[in-house]
Amino acid sequence: MEKTRVAIVGWGNVGRGTAEAVVSSPDFELAAVVRRNAEPAQQVVGHGWSAPAVTSLADTPDVVAALVCLPTRLTEAYEIDVLRSGVSVVDSFDIHGEALWAHRQALDAAAREGGAVAVTAAGWDPGTDSMVRCIMEALAPRGVTYTDFGPGMSMGHSVAARSVKGVADALSFTLPTGFGTHRRQVYVQLDGSRPFEAVAADIKSDPYFAHDDTHVTQVESAVDHHDTGHGVSLKRFGAAGTTGNQQMEWTMRVVNPAATGCCMLSALRAGLRQEPGAYTMAELPPAHMLPGSLESIVKRIV
Amino acid sequence: MEKTRVAIVGWGNVGRGTAEAVVSSPDFELAAVVRRNAEPAQQVVGHGWSAPAVTSLADTPDVVAALVCLPTRLTEAYEIDVLRSGVSVVDSFDIHGEALWAHRQALDAAAREGGAVAVTAAGWDPGTDSMVRCIMEALAPRGVTYTDFGPGMSMGHSVAARSVKGVADALSFTLPTGFGTHRRQVYVQLDGSRPFEAVAADIKSDPYFAHDDTHVTQVESAVDHHDTGHGVSLKRFGAAGTTGNQQMEWTMRVVNPAATGCCMLSALRAGLRQEPGAYTMAELPPAHMLPGSLESIVKRIV
Repeated sequence: MEKTRVAIVGWGNVGRGTAEAVVSSPDFELAAVVRRNAEPAQQVVGHGWSAPAVTSLADTPDVVAALVCLPTRLTEAYEIDVLRSGVSVVDSFDIHGEALWAHRQALDAAAREGGAVAVTAAGWDPGTDSMVRCIMEALAPRGVTYTDFGPGMSMGHSVAARSVKGVADALSFTLPTGFGTHRRQVYVQLDGSRPFEAVAADIKSDPYFAHDDTHVTQVESAVDHHDTGHGVSLKRFGAAGTTGNQQMEWTMRVVNPAATGCCMLSALRAGLRQEPGAYTMAELPPAHMLPGSLESIVKRIV
Repeated sequence: MEKTRVAIVGWGNVGRGTAEAVVSSPDFELAAVVRRNAEPAQQVVGHGWSAPAVTSLADTPDVVAALVCLPTRLTEAYEIDVLRSGVSVVDSFDIHGEALWAHRQALDAAAREGGAVAVTAAGWDPGTDSMVRCIMEALAPRGVTYTDFGPGMSMGHSVAARSVKGVADALSFTLPTGFGTHRRQVYVQLDGSRPFEAVAADIKSDPYFAHDDTHVTQVESAVDHHDTGHGVSLKRFGAAGTTGNQQMEWTMRVVNPAATGCCMLSALRAGLRQEPGAYTMAELPPAHMLPGSLESIVKRIV
């Protein structure tokens, strides 16, 4: 199978998960990893593979797409430049609603300008869960869908907590309290510059946490609580036409960065099969996410 | 919301379920029901609505699409004529693999010829389950997916059993025996023209039943066992990149014709948003299945 050359931008948990997805795939090749602080001739090394670390995407020729594994709030400015240069992008933007739509529209304009494709919010929520919520509503148009996350560490929320002044390290766990309600449990390790109460108040008022019951606990070492397992349950109780009692559920238990990396790569694969423009995962045909010909996919899995 | 005029072809369980889906939707209008034996000026009557019964789609002007609710083996010949006349179609063709691909390709040629759209295999399996299987493989590319149906009555298998000579009425139940294996339990009511043993042998050798452990039981009245409840469990145990122990499951308990009707209508809605040609459900973006603007869907559900 011919391989599409891609680069990974950012080398945190998601960057590493995405790299494993790329090197394990039959149809993609990891050309480079873009890191702010890469040194000349440096390599990033994984399980049985290595790839050049570079400081800029421009250092790597013939890259078709960039898997942008930066914190959500840094993605857009970076991606717009990349798209305008004709290179496609995928991100796992993790905010829903108005902010996501505005981001998609900004990427859409840049993607059309560059003749490239952008896939945004390509994680598992938003992402594959969004696809499943659409399928649930297609099956039972009237009703209620509940999304229950966890128990598990939220990468986006952990990054948000770490960005609060006075925090040396932090981990945020999402605990499902039933039918769409959650508790956030944040473990913070202080850097000594600010009192715990001030740090806890800032975390609780951050947009990532403000809408949930958030508990902040001071710990000696945040890393001692580190576990990348996560999960979700989506339930819908609804009616199809005039027929009630239609029930469906999606559950998942995964290593989070590995799942997110596969979502990003699968979404990119589907994106590269579309016209130039920007897409969320729910706007992509599920069969287009898999390697191989459409004929082979339909015969095997539909 | 402007309403798209559609007709339903066939007035069995699926036709009725599809009619309820159409009349409950905000964006479709039921123009007519096509029945072989419709009488002049006849109406079909549902819960709080009625629609003209006609003998031919040609009797109803301005129909954008036909929801073809005929037995699987009768769909293709009918649909090809309709597509060539420029009217779109959707069916719930219920055979997988080579036969499905051949059917899709036949419809694709006719749809392009007529400038129309065909969506095939738009039920819950093949159909929404196919979409979910793709999502599962996107999340965990290596691994095994198990599809367990039931307990519930299979409409396709019941129709197949009824078509055997000597059968007055029959119902086929699908019983999950774990990790992708099933038992078929067929209740047959004889018409007296052939011995039970001959009927049972013919059922067991039918392509619908030949690959499963099939038990055939003679009953006085098949209808006494009639229940339209059905369900499925899809499980995948797999690896994402080099990370194992990724687990996901989709479960559903539904009234089958109501769910199938909603699948057909949702698939048609998505199909009408695509270029002319034929599509299976896994080739359609999940968000395109829902009513309303893309912006409203992304903001609300993604």
